[in-house]
Amino acid sequence: MHHQKRIRDYGVKIGRLEPGHYNAITDIAGVTVGHVTLSDEDMQTGVTAILPHPGNTFKEKLIASSHVINGFGKTMGAIQMQELGVLETPIILTNTLSIGTAADALIQYMLEDNPEIGRSTGTVNPIIGECNDMLLNDVRAQFVKKEHVHEAIHNASPEFEEGSVGAGTGMLCYSLKGGIGSASRRFQLDHGEYTIGVLVLSNFGILSDLMINGRMIGQELKALLQSLEEKDKGSIMVIVATDLPVSERQLNRIIKRSVAGLSRTGSIITHGSGEIVIGFSTATKIPHDKPSTCLTIPAIHEEDMDTAFRAVGEAVEEAVLNSLVTATHIVGRGGNERPAFKDLLKEFNIALS
Amino acid sequence: MHHQKRIRDYGVKIGRLEPGHYNAITDIAGVTVGHVTLSDEDMQTGVTAILPHPGNTFKEKLIASSHVINGFGKTMGAIQMQELGVLETPIILTNTLSIGTAADALIQYMLEDNPEIGRSTGTVNPIIGECNDMLLNDVRAQFVKKEHVHEAIHNASPEFEEGSVGAGTGMLCYSLKGGIGSASRRFQLDHGEYTIGVLVLSNFGILSDLMINGRMIGQELKALLQSLEEKDKGSIMVIVATDLPVSERQLNRIIKRSVAGLSRTGSIITHGSGEIVIGFSTATKIPHDKPSTCLTIPAIHEEDMDTAFRAVGEAVEEAVLNSLVTATHIVGRGGNERPAFKDLLKEFNIALS
Amino acid sequence: MHHQKRIRDYGVKIGRLEPGHYNAITDIAGVTVGHVTLSDEDMQTGVTAILPHPGNTFKEKLIASSHVINGFGKTMGAIQMQELGVLETPIILTNTLSIGTAADALIQYMLEDNPEIGRSTGTVNPIIGECNDMLLNDVRAQFVKKEHVHEAIHNASPEFEEGSVGAGTGMLCYSLKGGIGSASRRFQLDHGEYTIGVLVLSNFGILSDLMINGRMIGQELKALLQSLEEKDKGSIMVIVATDLPVSERQLNRIIKRSVAGLSRTGSIITHGSGEIVIGFSTATKIPHDKPSTCLTIPAIHEEDMDTAFRAVGEAVEEAVLNSLVTATHIVGRGGNERPAFKDLLKEFNIALS
Amino acid sequence: MHHQKRIRDYGVKIGRLEPGHYNAITDIAGVTVGHVTLSDEDMQTGVTAILPHPGNTFKEKLIASSHVINGFGKTMGAIQMQELGVLETPIILTNTLSIGTAADALIQYMLEDNPEIGRSTGTVNPIIGECNDMLLNDVRAQFVKKEHVHEAIHNASPEFEEGSVGAGTGMLCYSLKGGIGSASRRFQLDHGEYTIGVLVLSNFGILSDLMINGRMIGQELKALLQSLEEKDKGSIMVIVATDLPVSERQLNRIIKRSVAGLSRTGSIITHGSGEIVIGFSTATKIPHDKPSTCLTIPAIHEEDMDTAFRAVGEAVEEAVLNSLVTATHIVGRGGNERPAFKDLLKEFNIALS
Repeated sequence: MHHQKRIRDYGVKIGRLEPGHYNAITDIAGVTVGHVTLSDEDMQTGVTAILPHPGNTFKEKLIASSHVINGFGKTMGAIQMQELGVLETPIILTNTLSIGTAADALIQYMLEDNPEIGRSTGTVNPIIGECNDMLLNDVRAQFVKKEHVHEAIHNASPEFEEGSVGAGTGMLCYSLKGGIGSASRRFQLDHGEYTIGVLVLSNFGILSDLMINGRMIGQELKALLQSLEEKDKGSIMVIVATDLPVSERQLNRIIKRSVAGLSRTGSIITHGSGEIVIGFSTATKIPHDKPSTCLTIPAIHEEDMDTAFRAVGEAVEEAVLNSLVTATHIVGRGGNERPAFKDLLKEFNIALS
Repeated sequence: MHHQKRIRDYGVKIGRLEPGHYNAITDIAGVTVGHVTLSDEDMQTGVTAILPHPGNTFKEKLIASSHVINGFGKTMGAIQMQELGVLETPIILTNTLSIGTAADALIQYMLEDNPEIGRSTGTVNPIIGECNDMLLNDVRAQFVKKEHVHEAIHNASPEFEEGSVGAGTGMLCYSLKGGIGSASRRFQLDHGEYTIGVLVLSNFGILSDLMINGRMIGQELKALLQSLEEKDKGSIMVIVATDLPVSERQLNRIIKRSVAGLSRTGSIITHGSGEIVIGFSTATKIPHDKPSTCLTIPAIHEEDMDTAFRAVGEAVEEAVLNSLVTATHIVGRGGNERPAFKDLLKEFNIALS
Repeated sequence: MHHQKRIRDYGVKIGRLEPGHYNAITDIAGVTVGHVTLSDEDMQTGVTAILPHPGNTFKEKLIASSHVINGFGKTMGAIQMQELGVLETPIILTNTLSIGTAADALIQYMLEDNPEIGRSTGTVNPIIGECNDMLLNDVRAQFVKKEHVHEAIHNASPEFEEGSVGAGTGMLCYSLKGGIGSASRRFQLDHGEYTIGVLVLSNFGILSDLMINGRMIGQELKALLQSLEEKDKGSIMVIVATDLPVSERQLNRIIKRSVAGLSRTGSIITHGSGEIVIGFSTATKIPHDKPSTCLTIPAIHEEDMDTAFRAVGEAVEEAVLNSLVTATHIVGRGGNERPAFKDLLKEFNIALS
Repeated sequence: MHHQKRIRDYGVKIGRLEPGHYNAITDIAGVTVGHVTLSDEDMQTGVTAILPHPGNTFKEKLIASSHVINGFGKTMGAIQMQELGVLETPIILTNTLSIGTAADALIQYMLEDNPEIGRSTGTVNPIIGECNDMLLNDVRAQFVKKEHVHEAIHNASPEFEEGSVGAGTGMLCYSLKGGIGSASRRFQLDHGEYTIGVLVLSNFGILSDLMINGRMIGQELKALLQSLEEKDKGSIMVIVATDLPVSERQLNRIIKRSVAGLSRTGSIITHGSGEIVIGFSTATKIPHDKPSTCLTIPAIHEEDMDTAFRAVGEAVEEAVLNSLVTATHIVGRGGNERPAFKDLLKEFNIALS
C-alpha cells in the first residue's frame, strides 16, 4: 500500500472528504486484509480475506448487511446476513468456481476456533464473494485449495497490497487489468469522528466507458488501442467497513450508495456478472450467547446519513481507480493478456492531472 | 369489547400463551383504536384508526416495519416505512376506493398538529390500509369523507368494538360476515414481561376452508349452507403492536409470522386482494429532531425470538376468529348479505367446545 | 419540446446511443404526457400525467415494475405493481401533500371509464408519484384539486413541455430550478429496433455536485454563487417506458440502471426524499379478463440486456439535464426563489461545449 | 415410495385436490430424485439430488424462483436465481457444514458436462440447500464427499425413498425423526391439466405443536413422552416443481404459499434455522445461447392462480407428513436418538383416521 503508486499519487483527488491514515478499509480499527496470490502461466488467481475484527467473530458478531446491485453472482451467506443482520466470519473473496472450496475452508477455520459449533450451538454462516477471472486464469482448473484460504486469513494485516494480488490476480477492470483496490473517508458528526473504508475486487467495465474524475479517458485510450477487445462480464465485489454506529437498516442504506461511486467511474452496471456489496460496522459487538439483559445498539440519527452516503460513494470511486492504477500487466491462460493502466499512462505519456 | 361474545367465550382457547388484559392490541400501553361506522342500506363501510401512542407521533416516531403476504393491495406508506424504519402517523383502515380521501384526511390531521411540516421540516408519510367491501357496500359511491377519518382518530380509546364496525362494517370472512378483530399475548423474557397485540381487518377466505383450532367447521357449515356463494378476494390487514424492544429487522421477522396464524384458520392466501402486515414497537421513541448524541436502541437477543413468533401467530389466529364471531348480519348493497357466524352457531345449534 | 432549448441544443451529447424522434418518453408509440401548471405567487405546483397507451389501461394492462433507489417517498401503488407485474392506470405526478387528492381523482377517472370496477370486478390500483416542492410552493395549502388531475390526463399528448411545468413547477434540481425533463434512446437488436424513453420529475442535489458530461460545472457555479443555499431533499421520480418485449423481472433489471445516469449528473443519492423509478413496457397487453388460453409473453434473451442498460442510463442522465436546462426562474412562496440554470449560463457567459 | 407406508396409507387425506401418479415431485414429467445415505453410528447424513429435467440444464434452463420464509440458512445460488429467474443445475440438498463440498462437487459435475463453461461462456450457478443434522450426525466431521454428490445425481429416478434417507438421514421433524417427504397435486385449468409437486427436507418443529389434518396429535404424544426434549432449530428446505406455464413472478407467488401448508402441520416458523423454498417450472426451456428471435414465454392468467396456491399448500402439508411418517428410528452421534412417528403410532396404538 505505502509503496504502490495510487490514484492520488497521480494527482487525482476524488470527492471532497478526507481519507483516513491508510486511505483503505483498514482505517477502521481492527480490520485487516490478507492475500494469497497464485500467479504462474495459466494460473492467475488467488484469495483475499477480510477480517472484521481481531477477536472471535463468531462469538462477537458485527452488525452487517448486503446489497445486490446486479445479482449475476454467486456470493454465499447473504440470506442469513439479511435475516439476522450480522457477520460472524471473515469474508473470503476468490474466483467463481472456487466458492465451494472457499466455503469449506472457511467452515473448517471456524470449526477449529469454535468447538461448540455443531455441538452445543448451531452452525456457522460463511461469507464468500467471487468474480470470474476466466480470461487470464484457467478457472476450470480450480487452483485454489483450502490451505490458500487459511493462508490468506493468516496473512491478514492492516497494510496490504492492491492490484493484481489475491483474488484480484486475474481480474479485469474496464478491459484493462483490475483487481484489489481500497480507499477510505473520514468525517465528523456531532458525537465523534468516523471512518468508512472500502475494498473492491474489480472485474467489470469496457475501456471506452472509463471515466476518471469526469474525464472520459477511456475513449482517449480506446482510440489508441483499437484492437483491444471490449467485452464486459460486469462483476465487482464491494466490501464496506465502518466504525459508525448504525442499525442494519441504516448500514444497508449506506452500502446501497456504492453504486454512485461505481457509476462515476463509468459503469453502466452490465448484465454479465455479480455486483454485490457487503457491509459491516465495528461499532457494536453482538454476543453469540444470550445475555440476561437487553442489547443496547447505538445508532446515528437519520439526519446524519448524508455524510455517510457521500463518504461511501467517494471511497468506492477511489477504490475502483486504485484497483485499476495499481494493477500490473499479466500474461495468463493461453497467453491471454490485458494491459496495465499505469503502463498505458507511461507508454502514451498521459498525465492524469 | 367487554360486552361482545368473543371466541374464548365460546370455549375456544387458541395456543398456549396467555392474553393480556383486554386480549386486544390495546394491551400495549398507549395504543388506542377508534371507529366510524357507516351502515345504512347500500352504505356499509367505515374507518378504523389505530393510534400508536398518546403523544405526537410525528415528533416521537416508533420503530416500524411492514410485510407483504400478498401484494394485491393498495396500502400506502410502506415504501418509506421500510426505508426509514419508523411510523410517524396513526394508521387508518378503510375501503379500497377511499384510500385517497383517507390519505388526504390524515395529511391534514398531521399538518394541523405539526405546523413545521412543509415549512421548517419535510413532509409526512401517512399510513393507510384497505380491504375491498364491494359486496355489501357500494364502494364506487366513496361514502367515506375526510371528517370520518378525523372522527375515527378522535374516537380512539383502549376499549373498542369488534366485528361489523369501522372499516370492518362491510367486510367478509370465510364467506360469512367479517371485519375487525383483535387479540394479544403476554410473555416473560429474562429482562421483563412483554405483550404483542394484533388487530385485523378480515376480508378473506371461503367457508369450506374455515378451521377453528383444528376443527374443519367450514366444511360442516358448507354442507348446511349449500347455496352460499364462495368467492374469495383474499384480503386482510394485520396491525401488530408490541412493547418488546426490537430493531426494525427483528420486528419484521416477528410480523412475518402472522401468516402462521392466518393459515391455521384455514387460509390458502388467495390471489384476490392484499394481505399486508404493519407492525410497530412502542419500546423506543425515535425523535424527529436530531439530538447531538447517538440514539440508543434497546433490542432483544435473537435467541428470544421464538416466544415472540409464537405470540404473534396465536394472536393473529385469535384475532381473525374474534372478527368472525363478533360480526353481525348485514344486508347491504342491492340486498346482498352474508350470514353472521354467531347466528349460524345458534341456528344449527353448534357448540365450539 | 420542439421550441424549448434542451441540453443537446447547448452542444452536450450524452452517451453513445441515438435518441428517438422527440428524444422523449413519448417516442414510445402510444405514450402521452399532459401537464397542469399552477403558478401564482405562493402557489407553484401542478400535476403531470403519463398515459401509457391510448386504450383502456385497466382492460389492457402493461407489464410494469418499480424500483426504490431511496425510499424516503410516498409513491402509491408500488406494492400491487410488484405483486402482479402490471400497470393498469395512468401515472400521476404531483407534490407530496397532494397524493391523497391525486389518488382520489385517479380512482374517479378509472371508475368513470370502467363501470364494472367495484361491481363485477375488483378494484383498481392508482399509481401516484410525488416530490416535495415546499421551498417555492406553499405545499401545506394543497392547491391541487381533483379537476387538475383530470385536466392533466386530458391534456396528454406526444409533445409536451419540460422544466417548470406540471408537477415540476416548484421543484429544484442541484439547488437551481428543476422539474420535468425527458429523453430517449433507440437501439437495434436482432429482432427489431426498440426505444427506451424516460421522464423525470427532478427535485434533488446540491449545486456543487452538479456534473455535466464529466464537467464539474456545479463547482464552477458555486464559486460564482456563494450565497446560494445548498440543502438537498434528494427526491426524483423516474418514469421509464419502452416498447422492448420484457418480463417484469427483466424490466426491473432495466429500470434499476436509472441510478447510473443519475449518479453521472453528480447525485450522491441523499437521504432527504424519495428516489423512485416506475417502468412499463408497451410490447404486451395483459387482458384484465381471463382468456381461455394461456398468455404468451414475448421477451428478449438476457444476453441482449446490456444495450437496454446503456440506453436507460443515458436517457436518465439526459432527462435530468433537460429538466435543469429548460427550467425557468420562479419566485414562489414568501419570495423564495431559485435561479434557472439557463439564466446562469447567460449571465456568466458559460458555454457547455 | 411404492413400498413405503405414507400418510394416505394411514387414512389421512390432506386437502381437496387429487395427487398425481406417484404423489411426489416426480409427477412432473422429467423430474427425478436421487439419494446417497450415509448411516453408521456417528455418521447419519447424506445427499439428495433433484434433477429438473433429463437434458442439459445449463443449456436449457428452467424458469425458477426462490423464497425465504426464515433466512437462518445457508442456501447457495438464490441471488442469481432471483436476478436471472432461471435454474441451470440440479438442486443438491445436504447438511449445513457440507455445503462447500456440495457446491464444489456440483460445479465439477457441471464443468464435465459443459466444456464451454469458463472458456467461451461464463460460469455456472450451483444450487445447494441444507439443514443442520447435528443432533444425530457428527456434522463437524463433514462426512459428505464430492463423490457422494455425484452418486446422488446418478441415482436420480422417478421413484425414490422418503424418510431417513439421503440428506434426510439425520434430520428431525417435530422432535421426532424427519427427513425427506414428497407429495403432489393435479388440477385442471381451461387450457390443460397441470401438476405441482413438492419435496421437503424436514428438520423443524417441536412435538407439542404437531397437527395432522387439524388434530393436535403432538400434544397427545407429548403427554405420553414427557421426557422427550423439544428444542427447535426450525429448518426446512422445500423444493417445488410444476409443469404450469408461469413467469418467475408468478412462480414466486406460488412458492410463497408453501408456508400455508407448513403452518397447518403446526409450525410457528421458529428462529433457529433456514426455511427456504426453491421452485421451478418445466413448461418453458430458456436457451443458454441467444437465439436471433425473441423468446416466447407462455404464462397462465393471474385469475388462475388460486388453484395453484391451493395445490402447493396441500402438497407441502402432505410432504411434511410423509417425511414424518416414513422416517425410521435412528441412533446416531453419541447415542442420540429420536423416535420414529410410525413406531409411536404402533407403540401407543394410535389410529390416524
